[in-house]
Amino acid sequence: MTTDRHDNARGADPLPSWNDGVTKRAITDFVKNTTTEGNPDYVRVPDRIALFDNDGTLWVEQPMYTQLAFLLDDVRKLAPQHPEWNTTEPLRFVLENDLAGLAAAGVPGLMKLLAATQCGMTTEEFAKTVQAWIETARHPKFERLYTQCVYQPMLELIEYLSANDFEVYIVTGGGTEFVRPWAERVYGVPMRRVVGSSLETKFEMLANRPVLIRTPEINLIDDGNGKPVGIHEFIGQQPIAAFGNSDGDLEMLQWTASGSGARLILLVHHTDSERE
Amino acid sequence: MTTDRHDNARGADPLPSWNDGVTKRAITDFVKNTTTEGNPDYVRVPDRIALFDNDGTLWVEQPMYTQLAFLLDDVRKLAPQHPEWNTTEPLRFVLENDLAGLAAAGVPGLMKLLAATQCGMTTEEFAKTVQAWIETARHPKFERLYTQCVYQPMLELIEYLSANDFEVYIVTGGGTEFVRPWAERVYGVPMRRVVGSSLETKFEMLANRPVLIRTPEINLIDDGNGKPVGIHEFIGQQPIAAFGNSDGDLEMLQWTASGSGARLILLVHHTDSERE
Repeated sequence: MTTDRHDNARGADPLPSWNDGVTKRAITDFVKNTTTEGNPDYVRVPDRIALFDNDGTLWVEQPMYTQLAFLLDDVRKLAPQHPEWNTTEPLRFVLENDLAGLAAAGVPGLMKLLAATQCGMTTEEFAKTVQAWIETARHPKFERLYTQCVYQPMLELIEYLSANDFEVYIVTGGGTEFVRPWAERVYGVPMRRVVGSSLETKFEMLANRPVLIRTPEINLIDDGNGKPVGIHEFIGQQPIAAFGNSDGDLEMLQWTASGSGARLILLVHHTDSERE
Repeated sequence: MTTDRHDNARGADPLPSWNDGVTKRAITDFVKNTTTEGNPDYVRVPDRIALFDNDGTLWVEQPMYTQLAFLLDDVRKLAPQHPEWNTTEPLRFVLENDLAGLAAAGVPGLMKLLAATQCGMTTEEFAKTVQAWIETARHPKFERLYTQCVYQPMLELIEYLSANDFEVYIVTGGGTEFVRPWAERVYGVPMRRVVGSSLETKFEMLANRPVLIRTPEINLIDDGNGKPVGIHEFIGQQPIAAFGNSDGDLEMLQWTASGSGARLILLVHHTDSERE
């Protein structure tokens, strides 16, 4: 029997930020059932896989995706070395703060920004750029670090599931390489359990050192239809729990729900008061 | 101190199939040093990542890659439903047992065989096909199941590292979806720790059920230059130990060796007597 692990040592509420109600009860029932040997819904430890979307589920996604804020900051930071950007679209939209022009440029426009700023470098250099930004950049409305704009109830849920031997993955439309550098520190999720969008990388020897160079070619858009693709590629087996907040999570939730046995599927709606 | 975990409870040799000598000593020293707190080479548990090549390292790769034997068997099995294959290259090379013709068709030829037999189906159906084959097909020379043509010293090494809280990955030029269905049973390595070559998959709703369809588009060739790409994509951090046997493992070994701190890199040369 493993039921003694469902709550912490003092038997305290493992989800103190959650209102008592149907949702909280569904979660704790699911965890009790899947982790109690002899229960018809029992799931052995290697199959306890839980997925969390990131933007809007674990941290804020308004007024814009955090990774977009990072990209725009990167364009502004590098612009002084590239005077030609002032007359090149879509780069000039960023420098002129023309968000409507940028939106009209769509995904191809964003890929051009990416190619100009965050490609052609090693994966190591990119990780350092992410680290430096995430440690200083602040959310425009909340005026706190983005990593402080995470939802406390979800942190509790990650911890609760982990304490019950679930392997927790972040499955994000954002970049794998954007989330990995801080995922363990902020969410307690190790780098290798971050499944996200990615660019192709290319192996090279640089001054006798092997490196991976980020290319502007898309490897995977891990959103919508792409989420089950990423989940299957990285994990290879059906998850038993999934948490999302938007249309881009629909296929991930369907994919998770389609397996046999007990499943926990949750579409979360946050209010600002839940932030950490 | 965690030194009491290096050997099993009785203090027995954790690598009984290995000859006492420099190599075995290098392995046990590495494990002792990286798992003993206070040792200058100590590595915390989440960073203990070890990689194993599969073909020729964990199991036999002669007279041909096992996955090629599977593919050729699949062509032969399905041929009666496709009379046109008798006059279509490279399919007819297989049916006429013309291995020279097949070799001349190269990788594009193999991709055509793959497209004809192992694409357009769901990932679930493919996994079942693999399972059915691997449970019955026998190695032509040893006349045993392929999963019995694995190297005992390497099984011991996987177990020894796992017992010392290393997370073991298989990094194979073979297909992720070919190795995953039996990796846990044969090697004790869960599906999500198999990093291999793969085709693109496509999400679809089939009779109201979400499925992933295997397409004939290559996603990743996880061999040579592709191994560090796959390792970075799946794991995202530098491994500290890697075991391979061939040219295709060179970049994986370089990539592993390039990180700072203690590293164990081994190019293995098996003799038949080491088989399980």
